[in-house]
Amino acid sequence: MKVLWIFAHPEQRSLNASLMREGLRELTAYGHETQVSDLYAMRWKAVLDAADVRPAGPGTSDAARLSVGAEQERAYTADEQSEDIRAEQRKIAWADTLVFHFPMWWFGPPAIMKGWFDRVLVQGFAFGLRGPDGRILRYGEGGLAGKRALVITSVGSREPGFAPRGIHGYVNDVLWPLLHGTFWYTGMAPHRPFVVYGADRLTDEGHREYADALRERLRALPEAEPLAFRSENGGDYDETLTLQPWIEPGATGPAVHEVCA
Amino acid sequence: MKVLWIFAHPEQRSLNASLMREGLRELTAYGHETQVSDLYAMRWKAVLDAADVRPAGPGTSDAARLSVGAEQERAYTADEQSEDIRAEQRKIAWADTLVFHFPMWWFGPPAIMKGWFDRVLVQGFAFGLRGPDGRILRYGEGGLAGKRALVITSVGSREPGFAPRGIHGYVNDVLWPLLHGTFWYTGMAPHRPFVVYGADRLTDEGHREYADALRERLRALPEAEPLAFRSENGGDYDETLTLQPWIEPGATGPAVHEVCA
Repeated sequence: MKVLWIFAHPEQRSLNASLMREGLRELTAYGHETQVSDLYAMRWKAVLDAADVRPAGPGTSDAARLSVGAEQERAYTADEQSEDIRAEQRKIAWADTLVFHFPMWWFGPPAIMKGWFDRVLVQGFAFGLRGPDGRILRYGEGGLAGKRALVITSVGSREPGFAPRGIHGYVNDVLWPLLHGTFWYTGMAPHRPFVVYGADRLTDEGHREYADALRERLRALPEAEPLAFRSENGGDYDETLTLQPWIEPGATGPAVHEVCA
Repeated sequence: MKVLWIFAHPEQRSLNASLMREGLRELTAYGHETQVSDLYAMRWKAVLDAADVRPAGPGTSDAARLSVGAEQERAYTADEQSEDIRAEQRKIAWADTLVFHFPMWWFGPPAIMKGWFDRVLVQGFAFGLRGPDGRILRYGEGGLAGKRALVITSVGSREPGFAPRGIHGYVNDVLWPLLHGTFWYTGMAPHRPFVVYGADRLTDEGHREYADALRERLRALPEAEPLAFRSENGGDYDETLTLQPWIEPGATGPAVHEVCA
């Protein structure tokens, strides 16, 4: 595999930083290539603004009303995005596997990683492409099709709270904006998240167990089956993008968008 | 009402900025008080780091391993947070209603608003409090109990795609990390989101209709019923934080955490 490991934690001595180092070592030992985007270490700019998409020059950045999506696409096509964005897009183009590794803050990635999605996955590059028949390529197809995506995250709570009937919501539902709305939307194959539970009070033994489990997940990743979300263009949705009435009739919730095992 | 309107859009000439101005005018006309946190205009710092929680001084910020949650609580209690964070916490303490207004990017708020949650809603202030009997106050109780929370957001897609069987996921499920994981978690009463659909191709008439609808929602807000999420301490969850087996037996997904109408 060619693995791009995107990491967002402010502390290099954290549990997560340690797990990243162990994961990268394992990948290297098994002959995989790796690149790392350590967002805090890079002082990654989190906030999407006009400077991202308008080449520097007197008066250019305030000249006209900023239309975010359209200008991201224009700047991408004209090769006028800021260099930090281009560097990330080159890494993505190189990779066949993207790992997103973060502590869960407010049930999602830290702002610095949210800003990576906002700024890097622009229209024309990651989505908004069309097939030969004019169909929009999305949800299973798109600019990042053919790549794997794996979330590695840590939470303070114990596992039952994130189970299908746990109070925090099923962890795959909590991560829906990433797994389905970002990975699958751009064509990537989302894998089952790797979650460290009880991270605030993990013993050394607990740490070792999670490190072992992570190494095992990474070794198995090339052959692993991703989550089986439904394709936009596979016939399961009608022209309004509503699930066809014969598919799990009356059922709702994120799980109906997965093909039943 | 005392309304704190938290706004995240880089363009003051945007549809969303216009809707905010119309909303604020309506609130004022009806005798409500308002404050605004316009995050882009304020150049809000999105990224939580050691500088937020460690008072400036030679060597202090790299001295010891950063334990994010614990140090946020320590700095809050010792009144040593950075001033931009304290200012937001004072506005929250003043308000009885929080409006979170943003264009939906990657199925969530822009990084600049995610960073507002990461940095402002710290342990000891917004959550992590205990009742007289020692119970953790969370999900319906907490530091922000008694306040309302309303999301106002815009999406490019049309409404059916965000309906309960739409391909993007039901909009309340997409916003679960905010509505349940942030608002309800800290004790706030989450209201049904106000969503502008088809925002990329809205006509002037469409804009007027949404502005009218927004004014109506804001006028009705003082008497409106919030979403009926289940309380952590109300008996619906067992000691592992799993939904009791007699509540919607076998059902899963975000909707099971709402009390049936």
